[in-house]
Amino acid sequence: MTPNIAAAKAALSHLDIEENTAAIKSKSRDFFWYSPVLKARLDGVVADFVVSPRNEGEVIEVLKTCYAHDVPVTTRGAGTGNYGQAMPLAGGCVMHLRHMSAVRDIQPGRVIVEPGCLLKDLDAACKDHSGQEIRMFSSTWATATIGGFIAGGSGGVGSCTWGSLRDLGNIIRLRVVTMEEEPRVLEFQGEELARVSHAYGTNGIITEIEMPLAPAYEWIEMFVATDDFMDAARFAEELANEDGILIKLATVFEAPIAKDYFQRVAPHVESGTNLIGLMVAPHSMDGFATFLGRRPGARLIYRSDASDWDRGPGMVFEYGWNHTTLRALKVDPSITYLQVRYGFPQHLPLIEQMREALSPEVLQHLEVLKEGGKVMFAGLSLVKFTSEARLDEIVKIHEEAGAMVFNPHRYTLEEGGRQTVDDRQLAFKREADPKGLLNPGKMIAWDDPDWAFDEMYAYPKIRAAE
Amino acid sequence: MTPNIAAAKAALSHLDIEENTAAIKSKSRDFFWYSPVLKARLDGVVADFVVSPRNEGEVIEVLKTCYAHDVPVTTRGAGTGNYGQAMPLAGGCVMHLRHMSAVRDIQPGRVIVEPGCLLKDLDAACKDHSGQEIRMFSSTWATATIGGFIAGGSGGVGSCTWGSLRDLGNIIRLRVVTMEEEPRVLEFQGEELARVSHAYGTNGIITEIEMPLAPAYEWIEMFVATDDFMDAARFAEELANEDGILIKLATVFEAPIAKDYFQRVAPHVESGTNLIGLMVAPHSMDGFATFLGRRPGARLIYRSDASDWDRGPGMVFEYGWNHTTLRALKVDPSITYLQVRYGFPQHLPLIEQMREALSPEVLQHLEVLKEGGKVMFAGLSLVKFTSEARLDEIVKIHEEAGAMVFNPHRYTLEEGGRQTVDDRQLAFKREADPKGLLNPGKMIAWDDPDWAFDEMYAYPKIRAAE
Repeated sequence: MTPNIAAAKAALSHLDIEENTAAIKSKSRDFFWYSPVLKARLDGVVADFVVSPRNEGEVIEVLKTCYAHDVPVTTRGAGTGNYGQAMPLAGGCVMHLRHMSAVRDIQPGRVIVEPGCLLKDLDAACKDHSGQEIRMFSSTWATATIGGFIAGGSGGVGSCTWGSLRDLGNIIRLRVVTMEEEPRVLEFQGEELARVSHAYGTNGIITEIEMPLAPAYEWIEMFVATDDFMDAARFAEELANEDGILIKLATVFEAPIAKDYFQRVAPHVESGTNLIGLMVAPHSMDGFATFLGRRPGARLIYRSDASDWDRGPGMVFEYGWNHTTLRALKVDPSITYLQVRYGFPQHLPLIEQMREALSPEVLQHLEVLKEGGKVMFAGLSLVKFTSEARLDEIVKIHEEAGAMVFNPHRYTLEEGGRQTVDDRQLAFKREADPKGLLNPGKMIAWDDPDWAFDEMYAYPKIRAAE
Repeated sequence: MTPNIAAAKAALSHLDIEENTAAIKSKSRDFFWYSPVLKARLDGVVADFVVSPRNEGEVIEVLKTCYAHDVPVTTRGAGTGNYGQAMPLAGGCVMHLRHMSAVRDIQPGRVIVEPGCLLKDLDAACKDHSGQEIRMFSSTWATATIGGFIAGGSGGVGSCTWGSLRDLGNIIRLRVVTMEEEPRVLEFQGEELARVSHAYGTNGIITEIEMPLAPAYEWIEMFVATDDFMDAARFAEELANEDGILIKLATVFEAPIAKDYFQRVAPHVESGTNLIGLMVAPHSMDGFATFLGRRPGARLIYRSDASDWDRGPGMVFEYGWNHTTLRALKVDPSITYLQVRYGFPQHLPLIEQMREALSPEVLQHLEVLKEGGKVMFAGLSLVKFTSEARLDEIVKIHEEAGAMVFNPHRYTLEEGGRQTVDDRQLAFKREADPKGLLNPGKMIAWDDPDWAFDEMYAYPKIRAAE
């Protein structure tokens, strides 16, 4: 099965095809370079061509044509993922969905949108229409697409209230095109959603999305400082457990993250300052003030509606989730990160244990997350990278203590997830992508069903630029 | 200190004063008769006169005048409380706030309203204005007032998501008039709110309320049936723990409550049917359908948007909270109830234990409630009343097992609450009601600071109609 790139390109030449080599290279990349491990392996990966369909009909045409010519297709939104989700490991076609960005319908509590719509544009449309917004978004809200968030993300700002994307009710419907001789268009709801959400586009291409909405408020963004790290963690947890106080973000940064990596915050904190980033609904600010007043060790140092800082910090959520690592990386290129699950009810002792074992080599960055109705933490810990061996060791220390790691130094679905095959995704790939052309190399279960997960998986057909 | 009723009436004669004896008697009563214990003690209680001020100025005039003439003042909204909250134990003046019902201002996430506004009118105004509604309401939504809910209630429909009224953020601001020689008008926020919320009007009169709002949706009301009771309880808990499914009500009725007491539901269930009453946001119905599909033992027998019942059941929330007891009472006058707290994480075992010990003398009626971020249950158990001694024994069985009882067969704040003095409320009463004229007999700490709580408190100055 040798891809006939030239034939596919020729057949698609009436579409929006990128010819410029530099542009092809740039559109073949996502944010994999957060990871030195992925950087070492994926830096040269490049597609043969990039096509940007304008509508579902053109998506079907791309998939049908590439199917006919055995050309791999890796689909992307803005390419802000950190797991190499959108890296075209086998080359071929990158399908860029930027033209498919229409917001089709907004109703109370729900929106229908095309996958290429930027999260910020989607929110703007919903707010403008009826004072609504999406329940959760990645910290790359300003640049990422809703389709990329669903296909490659798991949760984010808002997950402290609404849980994760995979939780029932957080995606209503997905319209999906298969990659077959005659592509089919399917509508997924309920149990079927799990087939293609967070599947990196390995088994179908999402062309329409129906999502629930929440009311849009003028969120008050804040920074709160504490001297003690566990005080900060408890503050965030206890605030999230206040059922009457509506929040959208509660993120905790171990000292000296704020001083060392948050340039506009640095003048207002010391090296020993632990920081909490918050988004609170305006009508919950009275309740928040009471909550804060009960904790004399916590100091409110910034609020977006009444700032006395010479230079404002920008959006507070752009310090949280994956932006924390981005800010640290910009100051110290040797920083990388982990994604850890600190599950209820062991979350606080586990965090304390990891911190005692690993700080300051690993600095705690926590995000409040709801799972199964309980407040817990996702850890997007900052790691001072020394070697792959040491990084693996750090992962192992977490896992042995009982903290699950979603390893962001792996590019497969399984290794970046729970290290097990998702049978629903695999079964649907058999049906929807019989030639295995969709985002190849990302699903171990497809390529190597007997893989033992005892070392990092290396996709044998990985193709780097010459 | 003898009240000079005639002088007070004369001084207030230019206000809206009720002169009709039957009307005075009717406006001197609340729903205390849910309890045979309270019925035996309060049935003859009656005020001397009823005054309905039109604005805060007239409230001040009533309080100032009654202060001058040593006349007790018991304030009421619609009188739908079940703890005798609005019963004028010492006679005197009943101040009825029905004229003070203006909705003053609606903003995103908040409303300012006068206390006499009916919950349903408040919701209608907020929905009409901007698609909003109050976060929680009592099952007496159609008849009760917002002021009465705050002064006499604790939570209700919506508490499965937002917690209780006392939780931070669920009341924003209260404006309060004191009963002194020169009444003062105070504005309470934050920690101060606890002084007068759920204080039965014993230490100040609320004249304006600022509350948070939530988005108003066309809630889908449903009944789900199960054969096993604990399956029903787990269904409600697990649904409430689904962070992505937005609900407003999850209530559980042990068999044969539905068959015996819910007349319009009875044709659709058997005696052995346990019932779950639900309100789910329309955009969460897909997630709910998935949740339901995973539980083959649970049968959806009614949904308000697609009913095939000849006679609809009306609003499902009017089967929950205190309406369950009301419906049972109408069929069997010997039924009364308890209010129980089944706290996380012992709630399910505790419920099972109480049911094994007491069913069918005590039938479980559970309401999902959030407390401290955790899903738990309030029990508004139906009790087949035989004697006061047995009722006390049933209360004791609950307490000894670790289930706190908010005894609805007592008319004092302490006995109906946590059986301890609320120092904030007592301290504020000293300041705001120096003569002890506001709703007398309801705060033991004021009347008898050394009371030992070893028997039911009997207010010595209780005055029955002759």
